[in-house]
Amino acid sequence: MSLMDSIAPSHLSMPVSGPVSAEDLGEILTRLRAAQPLVQCLTNTVVTNFTANALLALGAAPAMVDVPVEADEFARIASGVLVNLGTPHGEQRAGMLEAARAANAVGTPWVLDPVAVGALSVRTAFAGKAMELRPAVVRANASEVIALAGTGAGGRGVDATDGVESARGAALALAARTGGTVAVSGPVDLVLDAGRAVRVHGGSALLTRVTGGGCSLGAVTAAFAAAAGDPFAGAVAAHAMYAVASEAAAERCSGPGTFAPAFLDALASTTPEDLAKKAVLR
Amino acid sequence: MSLMDSIAPSHLSMPVSGPVSAEDLGEILTRLRAAQPLVQCLTNTVVTNFTANALLALGAAPAMVDVPVEADEFARIASGVLVNLGTPHGEQRAGMLEAARAANAVGTPWVLDPVAVGALSVRTAFAGKAMELRPAVVRANASEVIALAGTGAGGRGVDATDGVESARGAALALAARTGGTVAVSGPVDLVLDAGRAVRVHGGSALLTRVTGGGCSLGAVTAAFAAAAGDPFAGAVAAHAMYAVASEAAAERCSGPGTFAPAFLDALASTTPEDLAKKAVLR
Amino acid sequence: MSLMDSIAPSHLSMPVSGPVSAEDLGEILTRLRAAQPLVQCLTNTVVTNFTANALLALGAAPAMVDVPVEADEFARIASGVLVNLGTPHGEQRAGMLEAARAANAVGTPWVLDPVAVGALSVRTAFAGKAMELRPAVVRANASEVIALAGTGAGGRGVDATDGVESARGAALALAARTGGTVAVSGPVDLVLDAGRAVRVHGGSALLTRVTGGGCSLGAVTAAFAAAAGDPFAGAVAAHAMYAVASEAAAERCSGPGTFAPAFLDALASTTPEDLAKKAVLR
Repeated sequence: MSLMDSIAPSHLSMPVSGPVSAEDLGEILTRLRAAQPLVQCLTNTVVTNFTANALLALGAAPAMVDVPVEADEFARIASGVLVNLGTPHGEQRAGMLEAARAANAVGTPWVLDPVAVGALSVRTAFAGKAMELRPAVVRANASEVIALAGTGAGGRGVDATDGVESARGAALALAARTGGTVAVSGPVDLVLDAGRAVRVHGGSALLTRVTGGGCSLGAVTAAFAAAAGDPFAGAVAAHAMYAVASEAAAERCSGPGTFAPAFLDALASTTPEDLAKKAVLR
Repeated sequence: MSLMDSIAPSHLSMPVSGPVSAEDLGEILTRLRAAQPLVQCLTNTVVTNFTANALLALGAAPAMVDVPVEADEFARIASGVLVNLGTPHGEQRAGMLEAARAANAVGTPWVLDPVAVGALSVRTAFAGKAMELRPAVVRANASEVIALAGTGAGGRGVDATDGVESARGAALALAARTGGTVAVSGPVDLVLDAGRAVRVHGGSALLTRVTGGGCSLGAVTAAFAAAAGDPFAGAVAAHAMYAVASEAAAERCSGPGTFAPAFLDALASTTPEDLAKKAVLR
Repeated sequence: MSLMDSIAPSHLSMPVSGPVSAEDLGEILTRLRAAQPLVQCLTNTVVTNFTANALLALGAAPAMVDVPVEADEFARIASGVLVNLGTPHGEQRAGMLEAARAANAVGTPWVLDPVAVGALSVRTAFAGKAMELRPAVVRANASEVIALAGTGAGGRGVDATDGVESARGAALALAARTGGTVAVSGPVDLVLDAGRAVRVHGGSALLTRVTGGGCSLGAVTAAFAAAAGDPFAGAVAAHAMYAVASEAAAERCSGPGTFAPAFLDALASTTPEDLAKKAVLR
């Protein structure tokens, strides 16, 4: 079930870990639930609650610590860090830079979600600074990946107007800049680093009818990256978990309102065996 | 089913569009779902999530852009803007003025929700400035409308302690100041502009047992105003949609907790035909 | 069903009201629903929505007023005040001190929830200032109580890593400092003041799988403290209500996602008779 894309060796800028199979994902989820990674989220005001609940349902521990000084302190004890630019108020921006620097100082993976970058000037300028701090994973939709790579005009808010495949070149360029992983979310997700690429299939479109579907995936990516040790494998596991859990939830709801609690239930009830069996990687 | 109140011509300060029928509301909802209006919300920290989910369920696209500089930029590309004074922190207040001015500059309708105005000094002073920018729609409960018009002492937080009809004179005074629409929410909603008035009947009281019922209605009013072209017709459509959807949700829940997701489901499943058939305008 | 612990008279620093029985709790809930106390919450961005919905479901009225100047104004008309240090941004910290001082000035009970105190420096320093303003109730988990009393190293975010009984000495020390009540949440809750102590048994562990379970309990404690007149009795009632309602909700859900709305339903549907009958105090 797992077919890896090969990327030309010229793109390699870091040691390549091995490919990732659906079976590996089950093992990573087992490790996550045993370790209960502590994920520090510096995220937007719209999705804090849903993000924390997604982490709790999954088996991780959320901590929304984004006040300056504390952001630095907490990143030194967190297992993973999310920096999401959805509502980047001034005090939070200061906290974000602190957290990213502290995470780097102690070798903790941090995830950048450059919400609506390109369309808006404050976050676009800030995202440039954040990229210099080399996030372990950039998680975004195609429009944002293209904008962040400087090759497009940006999206309209959090909607992707560009297709995932159209962002492949931009994603590779970003991976080269950070030396890390880039995960492009869409109907089919594309996760790649300098030496590997996987497409994650499946998932319910209802996830796009609930605010925070993508934003919480950034936090869950940080949790899985911490559990996996390998940010690429963690990003693949997170995206596969969202595909599998959202499909399960779609069968147990009657609209976008009841989908959200059903999705949290599914994050909690999906077993490592379910994930290994149902994840579709190509 | 649609009976319009006539208002004396002396109140007219802008060209009067025609009256609005229940059938018109179905057509406006059809247009909204086709256009998927992009609604910028500068709103309070309590209801951001529910507001975004209400817009998504309805078929609109939310964007909570409230950081200064970006607030101006985004209002120039948004279809409609909401300014809600529920938790008006300093940085957000600056963004709110930017957004309202930018919306006016490009002719985009913006909605003012003066939460708890009158009772609290920071927002009361700010609401005065906001009113000078002439919102296309003021959406509020009776106590807030009376306080904003300077004829009362304000409510206690977000509860209406005055009846909707008691706010009719104040609403007319506000409409005269803005040249726009005023929507007074209550057991029966009163929507009026300088030349028209409609009462929207129905709706479940459970909507008042969930935080963000009224606040999200402000955002939905901005979405419908954008879709309708006519802010008055848009406000009527929004309030009728909330009445119809909340009644449907009340039949599928077992309390205020399960009402909220059922209400979002109902916003998504209510068709233009449902709205035209079930809206009660008098 | 109600067995009180006696505390040595040397701990007494304020007049002791009588013990609290399960029957008393039903009476306090009846009073709360009649009075609909207005609870001002200065709380973190993660749980504002859930907290407001918990208060509404219970029968109280939430108001999230935390902007400086307004925080002072509102505390003078509120029935109870919550100060929760979960995401203590600078502007909010100023509002918190205003609210606590104003509450004291007019004799309104205020509750301090020192989230993650000890682990993080900004809130730890701030919590020291807040303690000087003598909250009527400190509500926290065991790790936070120990850290606040200066006898431990703090927890990891909002999780309790220490047992409730291990915090008994620290809780007594805090009660001596404030002259008020300290409520330590855990599998069994311990509520005490200088002269009384009660353990509240029961409750579903699902409450710990939803963000805001503890934070909203702080707001509900403020509501019950206002209704009871006696902060100790109010704190016991709040914790018993959460135990009873969470057990009812656990029977009507299929995971942490559907637990949250079921819990809000249960807060609304639990009657004074249910509370008096099901509360387990020892």
